[in-house]
Amino acid sequence: MRLTPKNELEYRYRKLQVEMAAAGMDAVLMVQNADLFYFTGTVQTGVLYIPVSGAPLYLVRRDFMRARMESGLAHVVPLPSLNQLAGLIAEHGHPLPQRLGLELDVLPVNLYQKYLSLFPNVQALDASPAIRRVRMIKSHYEIHILQDAGTQADKVYRRACEVIREGMSEVDLAAELEHISRQEGHQGYVRMRAFNGELSGVQVLSGADGAAPACTNTALGGMGLTPAFGHGASYNRIRRDEPVIVDLASCYDGYLADQTRVFAIGSVSERMRRGYQDMLRIEELMVERAVEGASWGGIYDACLDLARRMGYAEHFMGIPGSQISFIGHGLGIEIDEYPFIAKGFSDETLQVGMAFAFEPKLVFPGEGAVGIENSFYLSEQGLKRLTFSSQELVLL
Amino acid sequence: MRLTPKNELEYRYRKLQVEMAAAGMDAVLMVQNADLFYFTGTVQTGVLYIPVSGAPLYLVRRDFMRARMESGLAHVVPLPSLNQLAGLIAEHGHPLPQRLGLELDVLPVNLYQKYLSLFPNVQALDASPAIRRVRMIKSHYEIHILQDAGTQADKVYRRACEVIREGMSEVDLAAELEHISRQEGHQGYVRMRAFNGELSGVQVLSGADGAAPACTNTALGGMGLTPAFGHGASYNRIRRDEPVIVDLASCYDGYLADQTRVFAIGSVSERMRRGYQDMLRIEELMVERAVEGASWGGIYDACLDLARRMGYAEHFMGIPGSQISFIGHGLGIEIDEYPFIAKGFSDETLQVGMAFAFEPKLVFPGEGAVGIENSFYLSEQGLKRLTFSSQELVLL
Repeated sequence: MRLTPKNELEYRYRKLQVEMAAAGMDAVLMVQNADLFYFTGTVQTGVLYIPVSGAPLYLVRRDFMRARMESGLAHVVPLPSLNQLAGLIAEHGHPLPQRLGLELDVLPVNLYQKYLSLFPNVQALDASPAIRRVRMIKSHYEIHILQDAGTQADKVYRRACEVIREGMSEVDLAAELEHISRQEGHQGYVRMRAFNGELSGVQVLSGADGAAPACTNTALGGMGLTPAFGHGASYNRIRRDEPVIVDLASCYDGYLADQTRVFAIGSVSERMRRGYQDMLRIEELMVERAVEGASWGGIYDACLDLARRMGYAEHFMGIPGSQISFIGHGLGIEIDEYPFIAKGFSDETLQVGMAFAFEPKLVFPGEGAVGIENSFYLSEQGLKRLTFSSQELVLL
Repeated sequence: MRLTPKNELEYRYRKLQVEMAAAGMDAVLMVQNADLFYFTGTVQTGVLYIPVSGAPLYLVRRDFMRARMESGLAHVVPLPSLNQLAGLIAEHGHPLPQRLGLELDVLPVNLYQKYLSLFPNVQALDASPAIRRVRMIKSHYEIHILQDAGTQADKVYRRACEVIREGMSEVDLAAELEHISRQEGHQGYVRMRAFNGELSGVQVLSGADGAAPACTNTALGGMGLTPAFGHGASYNRIRRDEPVIVDLASCYDGYLADQTRVFAIGSVSERMRRGYQDMLRIEELMVERAVEGASWGGIYDACLDLARRMGYAEHFMGIPGSQISFIGHGLGIEIDEYPFIAKGFSDETLQVGMAFAFEPKLVFPGEGAVGIENSFYLSEQGLKRLTFSSQELVLL
């Protein structure tokens, strides 16, 4: 069990304080679990108060002893009731904030109004872009954890190679792979920052299910077990000569890696096989382009252009009318962190320490989907892989 | 695969319209997944617009075809871009709302501001209490699905009886039980409405881990695998003569049932054994009291009073300083629906159609926890069980 080191936490809040000063914030009040874990090292219900200078104060409703034990922050105090929040902040020597940063991308309206009511004459600012920019650049400590998540993905991939059988259902396979994931340290929950971001651990889509349109902002959807949760594995049985997509969000010590591989019992059609190889070529193009200073949107444009030249205008990243406009997404504690290898992000550039998944995929309605997904990070020595399972189409 | 019947959807939105009229709302604009499933029968990204009278309009970003296929609503239309929302609502014959209900308990601030910006001179009201009151009363159709969730819980319980072994880790057991849950139709995700509501499927807590203080508003916490997700099963190994808590949030066709049983290899201490029997007596008291018209808070007070008279003032529903003030919570599509068998809800009364979990639990620091949890609903013929596994302490 890793405990986030003190100096790691200090490095993080100091980076945020630079962003806060630039945005004219006196303080940030933070409450969302992923942000709390990043800035405190634990996820106890409470409020993290970060002033623009000086040390943060973690006010904990429950459990205070767990927070003391797990957090490397120097100032952790009990918060008996939310109504005492402003008083406790003042008692610990902080002037009450005039311009207060809050996580406006995730904070529900009623909670927001409750927090604002606790501070007289306060102006609320959106702290989430600053928080996300700080979290975007991974430290060496974080990269090591991401590598462990990549190792977990490989173990799950190897289990998939062993257990896939004709006639087993998608959900049987997903259950088997979630089982090994949990045994390898997966927390059993995948954090997504976007509103309504609901994911189960392992996506298994076989045959035409690979081409079921997605209900959320992903290239592949799947049918799911029920319209109540209409994505991911279904009761559909895996048949011969069909592509079986296995998309893993592995997770170790809170950090996520994302890997997709394609399996088939027997073979797949020539079009599918060629499509798979072509997605590997798009990954190669990304690997060439993903150097320090490269534009996120520029990489996206180049890869989309190659996909079109390959003849996949109608198939790349979704079915016509449902194609998504990204090929990659940042990884860390949440599955939708910065950067986005996506349309329009031409002014944003790759920096050392960024980690992201890249997932060129093709969808053929009625037939299925193929593609590849790997996780990467940009090191001082260039782009490195976090996921490393064999990239061959797995024919069983 | 169940598709929510048209008449079921009509019954639901008409009940909401009565609440809306009473609250002076012209319309409700709904976007959260659990609410969308309840009122549309599917969970496609989009906006459900419910006027105070007349039929709802479901404007779907993705996927429109899935929405057409799965929703029993008559008016489902594509929503190419959010900026077209107000125009499309007007085109379908609705006057633009002046007093608009939104899900202010779950809607993030930035999205709220985006929606408000689309409607000139609109006043936002909180529609979530009305939505939750409608969802609180289950139809016969919903009760049947809840019964299926109860059946799933029993299957998982039976597997637990077979597989628990000395020396297996909590997470090994959780993984095994999550595996059978998924094969029995669990969607792999447990919806919780509260902010930061993150749950993994199966809670397994053995020995002293049962007494680890919870980081959220639950009686039992567990240590989890990592401070990044500090609750639920840990790597701790199950030993002889210790209580092993298995707390299941089973889920079928989107609906949740909640069941806790206690297992031990060998035996448990006399204090634990007596405590377990005493929690069954508290459940019996609740069953006696839970009649139509009974006050939620009144049932809570009576049960807390009995626990105190039994000598458990320091142990009931948590360790001292961390005791929670509820013993039961409503069940449906989310695990924290109305009603709450909780402190302070003295003016709210049980009504036919309510479904809830009841979970009297005792915590002994350093030793562990015992208790029982079952799910119930109030029928025209009185209280009925949704979960029905044997209530004996399971000695293996």
